[in-house]
Amino acid sequence: MPGSFKEIKYKMKENMIVRVSKTPLLNGDAVDAKREELRQYFHQTYSLYEALFEPITSDEAYFIRPEPLRHPLIFYFGHTATFFVNKLVLGKYIDERLNRSLESMFAIGVDEMSWDDLNQANYDWPSVQTTRAYRHKVRGIVDEVISSMPLTLPITQDQPAWVILMGIEHERIHLETSSVIIRMLSLDYLKPHPLWEPCRISAAAPKNTLLPVAGGCVTLGRGDNADTYGWDNEYGSKTVEVDSFHASQYLVSNEEFLAFVEAGGYQQLRLWSEEGASWLNYTKASIPHFWVKRNGKYFQRNLLDEIELPLNWPVEVNYLEANAFCHWKAEQTGRFIRLPTEAEWMQLRNMIDTDQPYWDEAPGNLNLEYFASSCPVDHFETNGFYDITGNVWQWTESPIDGYPGFEVHPLYDDFSAPTFDGKHNIFTGGSWISTGNEALKFSRYAFRRHFFQHAGFRYIEATTKEVPVEPVNTYETDDLVVQYLEFHYGDSYFGVANYPVACIETLLAKLPAINTDKALDLGCSVGRASFELAKTFSHVDAIDFSARFIQHGHQLQETGQSRFSIPTEGELVAFKETSLEQLGYTKEGKERIHFAQGDAHNLKPQFSGYDLIFCGNLIDRLHDPKRFLNEVHSRMNSGSYLVLTSPYTWLEDYTDKSNWLGGVKVNGENFSTLDGLKETLSQRFEFIEALDVPFVIRETARKFQHSVAQMSLWKLKD
Amino acid sequence: MPGSFKEIKYKMKENMIVRVSKTPLLNGDAVDAKREELRQYFHQTYSLYEALFEPITSDEAYFIRPEPLRHPLIFYFGHTATFFVNKLVLGKYIDERLNRSLESMFAIGVDEMSWDDLNQANYDWPSVQTTRAYRHKVRGIVDEVISSMPLTLPITQDQPAWVILMGIEHERIHLETSSVIIRMLSLDYLKPHPLWEPCRISAAAPKNTLLPVAGGCVTLGRGDNADTYGWDNEYGSKTVEVDSFHASQYLVSNEEFLAFVEAGGYQQLRLWSEEGASWLNYTKASIPHFWVKRNGKYFQRNLLDEIELPLNWPVEVNYLEANAFCHWKAEQTGRFIRLPTEAEWMQLRNMIDTDQPYWDEAPGNLNLEYFASSCPVDHFETNGFYDITGNVWQWTESPIDGYPGFEVHPLYDDFSAPTFDGKHNIFTGGSWISTGNEALKFSRYAFRRHFFQHAGFRYIEATTKEVPVEPVNTYETDDLVVQYLEFHYGDSYFGVANYPVACIETLLAKLPAINTDKALDLGCSVGRASFELAKTFSHVDAIDFSARFIQHGHQLQETGQSRFSIPTEGELVAFKETSLEQLGYTKEGKERIHFAQGDAHNLKPQFSGYDLIFCGNLIDRLHDPKRFLNEVHSRMNSGSYLVLTSPYTWLEDYTDKSNWLGGVKVNGENFSTLDGLKETLSQRFEFIEALDVPFVIRETARKFQHSVAQMSLWKLKD
Repeated sequence: MPGSFKEIKYKMKENMIVRVSKTPLLNGDAVDAKREELRQYFHQTYSLYEALFEPITSDEAYFIRPEPLRHPLIFYFGHTATFFVNKLVLGKYIDERLNRSLESMFAIGVDEMSWDDLNQANYDWPSVQTTRAYRHKVRGIVDEVISSMPLTLPITQDQPAWVILMGIEHERIHLETSSVIIRMLSLDYLKPHPLWEPCRISAAAPKNTLLPVAGGCVTLGRGDNADTYGWDNEYGSKTVEVDSFHASQYLVSNEEFLAFVEAGGYQQLRLWSEEGASWLNYTKASIPHFWVKRNGKYFQRNLLDEIELPLNWPVEVNYLEANAFCHWKAEQTGRFIRLPTEAEWMQLRNMIDTDQPYWDEAPGNLNLEYFASSCPVDHFETNGFYDITGNVWQWTESPIDGYPGFEVHPLYDDFSAPTFDGKHNIFTGGSWISTGNEALKFSRYAFRRHFFQHAGFRYIEATTKEVPVEPVNTYETDDLVVQYLEFHYGDSYFGVANYPVACIETLLAKLPAINTDKALDLGCSVGRASFELAKTFSHVDAIDFSARFIQHGHQLQETGQSRFSIPTEGELVAFKETSLEQLGYTKEGKERIHFAQGDAHNLKPQFSGYDLIFCGNLIDRLHDPKRFLNEVHSRMNSGSYLVLTSPYTWLEDYTDKSNWLGGVKVNGENFSTLDGLKETLSQRFEFIEALDVPFVIRETARKFQHSVAQMSLWKLKD
Repeated sequence: MPGSFKEIKYKMKENMIVRVSKTPLLNGDAVDAKREELRQYFHQTYSLYEALFEPITSDEAYFIRPEPLRHPLIFYFGHTATFFVNKLVLGKYIDERLNRSLESMFAIGVDEMSWDDLNQANYDWPSVQTTRAYRHKVRGIVDEVISSMPLTLPITQDQPAWVILMGIEHERIHLETSSVIIRMLSLDYLKPHPLWEPCRISAAAPKNTLLPVAGGCVTLGRGDNADTYGWDNEYGSKTVEVDSFHASQYLVSNEEFLAFVEAGGYQQLRLWSEEGASWLNYTKASIPHFWVKRNGKYFQRNLLDEIELPLNWPVEVNYLEANAFCHWKAEQTGRFIRLPTEAEWMQLRNMIDTDQPYWDEAPGNLNLEYFASSCPVDHFETNGFYDITGNVWQWTESPIDGYPGFEVHPLYDDFSAPTFDGKHNIFTGGSWISTGNEALKFSRYAFRRHFFQHAGFRYIEATTKEVPVEPVNTYETDDLVVQYLEFHYGDSYFGVANYPVACIETLLAKLPAINTDKALDLGCSVGRASFELAKTFSHVDAIDFSARFIQHGHQLQETGQSRFSIPTEGELVAFKETSLEQLGYTKEGKERIHFAQGDAHNLKPQFSGYDLIFCGNLIDRLHDPKRFLNEVHSRMNSGSYLVLTSPYTWLEDYTDKSNWLGGVKVNGENFSTLDGLKETLSQRFEFIEALDVPFVIRETARKFQHSVAQMSLWKLKD
């Protein structure tokens, strides 16, 4: 029925006033109907995005830069179309680009979702007319792909339909972020528009009070089999124990925030975090970004108009301002006032028992179902709380991070991963213009803490000073550390078994009678052998000279996971994650390990009494291996074992040649490292056996170090 | 019968005057008899060596250094005993050393056979008495080993008996070299000795004349299955075409050489090679080393006495002096006078139809069968020539080199290999004190050209100026070049097939219809792919940017072989050799290859008209790969193919990031090198296929680079 692109287009124009849509369900029985639903959702999104630009009265406005940290609007106008082309080309769903030069300009911009360093290059932007014509062509291409693509239900991440949804939801993100940029554009360039009618009600704000919220277990994440499109960061699941707390009944209103402003909040640096003070110093801000102060009177800039400061609307600030306000409020009240965490917000959100796309009416000023602006903070109530979702986004204390099991989508591998850096905080709940995926309960978006969006906050009162926020599992990128993380926790290559695991399994098989009280993993690197030893030994000390290696073992022990990006080809990387659970390590086991930084040549006295000392690839990296071998017995129990592995790669960078154990001519004859080990250890140790253990260290997708270590086993003589 | 060491020792004393022995045959029927023959040969050698020191009248003499480039005699006295211990320990035929400290001092010295840089360290030498006691203990140990070792016939290189023979023959070498040092010791420390009776005859020298020697094919080398012990450098075989020449009837006598001295030969630098002039300048020599000029009269120092210059004895000089003499003689006569090559000497030697151990009487002043000194040059005649073997060693023009198939013995891997450096010249024929292996026809010894031994020379007259000496196959030691030689010509590791061969075989299988007139191997490195291509293509150009790589391909083409030492562990190396013949390449094939140094970015115009251009692991090492790919078609025939392989290891050291073909983000998206190849080549080439080809580059015995290259095949569009 809804045949050609032309017909669809016509229908969309008719329906232009229909701002509201729901993100499609992935499942269903009827493929044809789903195909048309996708087509409808695509065109509605595409048209709605174009409609956002309709209030602009002059093409000139597309080329100025109202927000210096952003490209001009022309980029965003073209960008959402180019995104479809890029992902379809990357997925090999279309063969050719439309316009290499335009697509190059519209491809990377300043994607608020992932980074915010502005490229200062001069762009030779195309005209609005050219860009509009380009958008038109892309609309036709995407429509054709929707018509011709294979489709089975449910839609899975490997289908072209997923890429279509990705493009649509990406455009819906830009619907919101472009609206923020337009909100910064001079009103001289804008006219009112029937589609973008703001709320026209305002009054004094209600008095905000703190209401109790019961604690409990909160499960975050949409799980792995959700029924709607989701971004990579939403998948997986994480259960968090939330203490009881109090939360403010309302979002903080302009009026409530005004008290902070008038109390000199922007001038009192003690209220600001270090980052906040630095931002304040740089911007010289003294009132919220969308406020205007003229002749002693406050106004607020909205999308297409400026009005007297609506006192009962939510204030819109960045995280740093919200955080300073909380500090001030805490000072005023003597209480632990702060922003909620993601989990605390979810505890509130769980009071609402519906979600888009299932609702009939949005439970808040959300999904463009009510206003094209904020509205008073006392309009949408649930259990005595208002605006649990909608109106403006709500900043949280939580830096964004993936849930356990996080995986990137191969066609958009930098959507989230670069934001797992501890510098991007989550906000929740959506704003009046959050639609599609953005309007879902499990949607998660994060920005740098100084960024402005349609975002404000609710504060809570906690029972303790400490903010229950875990450190972010940032992606390790240090080349050497990453090689070792992959070496210890990553994939096998060339059929060679995981080396730390193989070493421990081999040595335990060779030493069945070993006492299993206490082991030392000396030169533990990122720690895999220690986790393996902790399956058998009651206590494992894991020591390495390098803190940058150890911290990953320690982090795995603390958080259960570790993330790293491994080079594939040139500058390209793949994002990897490991978790102890997936590797089969128990909580009980990991707690037997004690990570510590230390020097094999100079260990503290408490590191002794071992039944096993395992030195994996250590001895050829010591500066005085002979001294170490001559002293190590003093840390060992009677009848205990020393196990050494090494490929004997002696290098003067690490060990003066005069200190090499072997691999040298001694009195003119070849003298191997094993000869040297025997010579050095034979007085105190009985040599049991030497055998080969291969290992592979990945450098890139196509380049590996493939080595064969020699393991030697030694029993301490009585 | 000859039971205990004591009995044997007693017997040896009785037989002390028996200086003569023969090196044992390796084969035989009776194991017990062979064991006793070995025991006898050992004790005879050991006692004979000790007897060499008997003329010394004062222990003091053991600790002075008559030859500053050598250790004092005490070292040599202990060294030959320690050598037995070292090799038996290394071969694990005995478990423990006798005396670690003595053996450390006696182990490496200044082994004239392999190097001659003097260690200037101060040694705390043991006393003669201590050393003699040590020698005595070693004699007992070796005797025990001979009694208890397993023995089968024939004796092969992997048997302990081989190590016993190695120690014996080593001691026989030092019998000679120590006699040279004693010859430099002041006569104050020496007394006559019945065992070391010199020749007492001398007179005017006979007039030397040049006699014709017919040319022909000469086969050098003892082959692989000789019946006596041989050093590594004697094995294998090499056939050389020798032109007819004339050779001097006699060795050059003192009288003949005196004419050169008196003609101012030592003062006329034009007669000397560059090396000779440099030596002359350093030593200020004006007469032969063992001559003494006193009050205008010449004398000669022999082992234990000084006599009036015996005019008809052979002059003893180093190679540099012999060479200068020949230049002088050539000037005098206007003829091509020079030293013989090894092959030319062998052509003479072939006139004698016997060899030790088969002869009844030595065919020259050799094997201690006659004098403990030189004797007149006209004493031992064969076919009109005198002293073809014996009297003094005869310097040749040939720097020592292994024959094709050369392999080191694992227990003495540096006996010869370090002398294959172009700086050690062979001398032949043996001297009066050359015994055991030294007295054999196929023995080959070489020294630095400035060294003195009991050595002189015969000169020859050639028909052309050119000296028919091949460049030495020195052992390549450059780490990177060696890695590539092993990569191209060495062993397989981890079951991964030889990479250049696999590449060529794969591409030919994929391109069965290819025209096979002309191929280019661009980035040929050390050339294996070119030899492989030459099996199929009529003409192969092999080009690399690096001359140090290419020279090895070229050398293989020229000489058929290449040698290199690969690191095993630490500073230890293994000696490797490759030969085209062993690899199955024909003379016809290799002559189709033209090696040239060249830059892929700037090839000379003649490099064009190709049916195939193969670039193995090249593109990620070019500084501007795109430019290369955009130009390469101009060198290709219609319907020809371009084949690229690479692991795409882009590094800014080689290629500016802006020039990487891929492995980068392009417009925000991952852009692989294959994407980049397609983008760059698609206008002119049809993409056929891409497939993986693994390869392994060995770094040490336990460390390898294991990579997976992508091969892509492209057909030039018409």
